[in-house]
Amino acid sequence: MRSFEVRTPRRVAFVDITAQVTAAVEGHGEGAAVVYVPHTTAGVTINENVDPSVRADLEMALERLVPSDLPFTHLEGNSDAHTKASLMGSSATIPLAGGRLQLGTWQGIYLAEFDGPRTRRVLVSVLAAP
Amino acid sequence: MRSFEVRTPRRVAFVDITAQVTAAVEGHGEGAAVVYVPHTTAGVTINENVDPSVRADLEMALERLVPSDLPFTHLEGNSDAHTKASLMGSSATIPLAGGRLQLGTWQGIYLAEFDGPRTRRVLVSVLAAP
Amino acid sequence: MRSFEVRTPRRVAFVDITAQVTAAVEGHGEGAAVVYVPHTTAGVTINENVDPSVRADLEMALERLVPSDLPFTHLEGNSDAHTKASLMGSSATIPLAGGRLQLGTWQGIYLAEFDGPRTRRVLVSVLAAP
Repeated sequence: MRSFEVRTPRRVAFVDITAQVTAAVEGHGEGAAVVYVPHTTAGVTINENVDPSVRADLEMALERLVPSDLPFTHLEGNSDAHTKASLMGSSATIPLAGGRLQLGTWQGIYLAEFDGPRTRRVLVSVLAAP
Repeated sequence: MRSFEVRTPRRVAFVDITAQVTAAVEGHGEGAAVVYVPHTTAGVTINENVDPSVRADLEMALERLVPSDLPFTHLEGNSDAHTKASLMGSSATIPLAGGRLQLGTWQGIYLAEFDGPRTRRVLVSVLAAP
Repeated sequence: MRSFEVRTPRRVAFVDITAQVTAAVEGHGEGAAVVYVPHTTAGVTINENVDPSVRADLEMALERLVPSDLPFTHLEGNSDAHTKASLMGSSATIPLAGGRLQLGTWQGIYLAEFDGPRTRRVLVSVLAAP
């Protein structure tokens, strides 16, 4: 298992981690890579890797879905972030073939930060084909 | 790794791909199957396989969650589709035992199209138990 | 593959299953564990394991996201539950290292019930590192 750290720039931010994940799986053959975020107010998702306006639109749409001013009871005041993290999920699984992540042409891997700025840890676990 | 193509019929449509995934894992024993969609405006999900009204209701509920007329900035005009794709996720992982997908009685696997009609590719990667 | 049953207490409830999953992976080394829910009105998610108000807030936020009184057509009247199940997902994948689930300090694994109270089944499949 490999891991790396990511510094997130704002409270809500999708940070591209494709290069770090690609480096972490180097030299492995067939199977899949699991990208795992061991946090409860951040998640991981796969989405478009070219136009940065897509990330901005995702951040805006998630804010509208789960506004931070819902009548939450958790005293830390970040229940919206916990909810958004569960909507994105804690892991992404990507097939590996010939030692390469089988991402589509327009796909990138994003750490989805919902309670930053913070330093986050990401785990990458490679799984074997039979 | 296996792959197959799916033609989606409308802009938003949940297309049953259970039969294609079942065929792709044939002959494998213990572990899990990863169903992966290498696109950024479509995802994959598992849901009820009998009453087609559930799929229609899912499509309607997702439209309500992320309306296409939010004030998005991405010029291609499909940011709602990118957001819905991340809500569903790019992969589904299903345990394999005795060479069979361990789907529940009422579960089917669906390609979740949010910017069709299009031809989509689906990858199926089998992972081994220890 | 291992499996266990969980009794859920209400229509919507996040039930902590971390202890059962930890027991199911005991003795395995490197790789990952897949926690799978073979139902279509319940899912699985990873979130904060200390303050129970976070779970209550998650339940409330999901009710707001997909109200049960949307104009659904499915006659069983539980289409909101099907939609919430797809938003959470049917599986969670957690890296294993040295025989231990690599959960973060504040992470727990939750069965996300949306149409209870019921008895639900959970599958745990261990996958091997290369």
